[in-house]
Amino acid sequence: MKAAIFKQAGQVICEEVPKPTPSNPDELVMRVVRACVCGSDLWWYRGISPRKSNTSTGHEAIGVVDQVGQSVTSVKPGDFIIVPFAYSCGVCPVCKAGFEATCPRGGFFDSGERGLGAQAEFMRVPKADGTVVVIPGGIERARSFSDDMLADLLTLSDVMATGYHAAATAEVKAGDTVAVVGDGAVGLCGVISAKLRGASRIIALSRHEDRQALAREFGATDIVAERDQAAVDRVKELTDGWGVDAVLECVGSKQSTSTALNIARNGAVIGRVGVPHDEQVDPEAMFYRNLGLRGGPASVRTWDRQILLQAVLDGSINPGRVFTDTYDLDHIAEAYQAMDQRTSVKSLLKVSEV
Amino acid sequence: MKAAIFKQAGQVICEEVPKPTPSNPDELVMRVVRACVCGSDLWWYRGISPRKSNTSTGHEAIGVVDQVGQSVTSVKPGDFIIVPFAYSCGVCPVCKAGFEATCPRGGFFDSGERGLGAQAEFMRVPKADGTVVVIPGGIERARSFSDDMLADLLTLSDVMATGYHAAATAEVKAGDTVAVVGDGAVGLCGVISAKLRGASRIIALSRHEDRQALAREFGATDIVAERDQAAVDRVKELTDGWGVDAVLECVGSKQSTSTALNIARNGAVIGRVGVPHDEQVDPEAMFYRNLGLRGGPASVRTWDRQILLQAVLDGSINPGRVFTDTYDLDHIAEAYQAMDQRTSVKSLLKVSEV
Repeated sequence: MKAAIFKQAGQVICEEVPKPTPSNPDELVMRVVRACVCGSDLWWYRGISPRKSNTSTGHEAIGVVDQVGQSVTSVKPGDFIIVPFAYSCGVCPVCKAGFEATCPRGGFFDSGERGLGAQAEFMRVPKADGTVVVIPGGIERARSFSDDMLADLLTLSDVMATGYHAAATAEVKAGDTVAVVGDGAVGLCGVISAKLRGASRIIALSRHEDRQALAREFGATDIVAERDQAAVDRVKELTDGWGVDAVLECVGSKQSTSTALNIARNGAVIGRVGVPHDEQVDPEAMFYRNLGLRGGPASVRTWDRQILLQAVLDGSINPGRVFTDTYDLDHIAEAYQAMDQRTSVKSLLKVSEV
Repeated sequence: MKAAIFKQAGQVICEEVPKPTPSNPDELVMRVVRACVCGSDLWWYRGISPRKSNTSTGHEAIGVVDQVGQSVTSVKPGDFIIVPFAYSCGVCPVCKAGFEATCPRGGFFDSGERGLGAQAEFMRVPKADGTVVVIPGGIERARSFSDDMLADLLTLSDVMATGYHAAATAEVKAGDTVAVVGDGAVGLCGVISAKLRGASRIIALSRHEDRQALAREFGATDIVAERDQAAVDRVKELTDGWGVDAVLECVGSKQSTSTALNIARNGAVIGRVGVPHDEQVDPEAMFYRNLGLRGGPASVRTWDRQILLQAVLDGSINPGRVFTDTYDLDHIAEAYQAMDQRTSVKSLLKVSEV
């Protein structure tokens, strides 16, 4: 089968590799219908984070169940499923509390292990019963889905759920004034999430016109194009000096974290989902402002099943709009380049027909 | 009038000073009935935090309204009130969100400013309408209160509400397994709070027998007397290796914060109320465990009015049990010494009859 393979910084290519089979009784193999490239892939693509050569890539996919291991009970061949970016046991106290992406028995699909990569024609899914999200109706219903609906569903494997995790951990509630730091696909999904949770005012910090337009389409009421201290000043100005009720931190850098803390109203919670790189916080300064810091790898399965899958299926949210370019596996290199060069907000991979 | 005055590290004495009057139209002056010494007072008493000489001390009191400034509308002479450790405007977005102890228009009674100290026969209360908690029934009803009830009510000026702030920001909910780090008066009130919020298992980290007994009386189901890594190991053992659903951090040291983070179940929130001293957190490690860090100066007025005052008045909680010694203002030096030497959990000051 075809699969994307990381060679070295700046180089991801499509190679012919063996098709995976369930290597454990609790695994399934999925035929990938749609996959994509994540903003977090750019950390190693750009050589900022280390990654071994010749590793499988990709951690976002939807598709059709092809084979199941003998202990898999909740899903069967022909089911149409979402695979979150992390696998999880589904039954431990961490999973039961709704934090399955940090299940100590689980792991990340982006570990590089062969067969786990989502940018491929087939992928293995460990701990299938505790991991996948089943889209009701199976392959028959899925064949009726438009390309736009498939794109919307694909975001439920990561970015939409990650944006929602930021909003949920920031405790966004009806009537809140919310700021979203970061205008990547996750930040844009954060805007959708803040609106979905009833925020009455959503301030998107975005410096790119195309993303500003998408943010507005998704529900942003204000755009702040300034950066650093000027951005803080502007958000303060927009909130009569008080700061916002909740902050969605969707970048993970030292600068974005600092901005997030500085634009928060005393007592606010920063919900963060940007993979941290050199983040620094001053716990004493946070204490005297009653600021909270929460978040981490997103609870994809929890949020999908609790709210997001239904919201996509009934058309009340359209997160698939974050995909601005479409590629096939043969053009995986271009899909990465477009995101690296910011000509694409997020690159979709059309791997197969339903 | 008599008032406690800080002279130098290790020396707080009772002096005769002028009785305060409302210095602003929004202030009131309260005749203090009960006050006390706080664990946080020990930071400067021991010379660890700086404090100016000849400053007023104390930030916890209940008493009778003596005089009100002309703009005060919600309270009148003869009312029996609780004065939280911080004053607040009561109307800004921070106060409305329930984080009044960090109101940017407010301040701490323990600033040292003359007249604001609670360890005195009378004290000024700035921004009275936004600050005090009125105990229904006024001085007439208060005269019927037992010494125990007065002690219970006094804890609502700080420690009981602070313990509750830890539990609330840690998001303790019914059925949770909760750990309380710190066995001072606040930690003990944290145990009460965890129980009040429906925790089914409460693990108190306590190394002192007298405090262990109080913790059990307040609802602790397990006592962990170990410290540092041994304490972490023991809590993990008690929770089958998973850690606890919520942690109340009631100390504020580097060590206690580290313990709090290490005993938390992935996805848990640490609610912290210990005044931070050299606290350090690793935001990246927290991220990959979905750990949250919240808390700060407690929302005394919010929690008192929402739940705690009623719980004290109907006898369902007895936080006044944290007072193990009683003094008068003439013996303020002994009241501090008893806490410094840990012979007292918390020292009560009987300043006047109701």
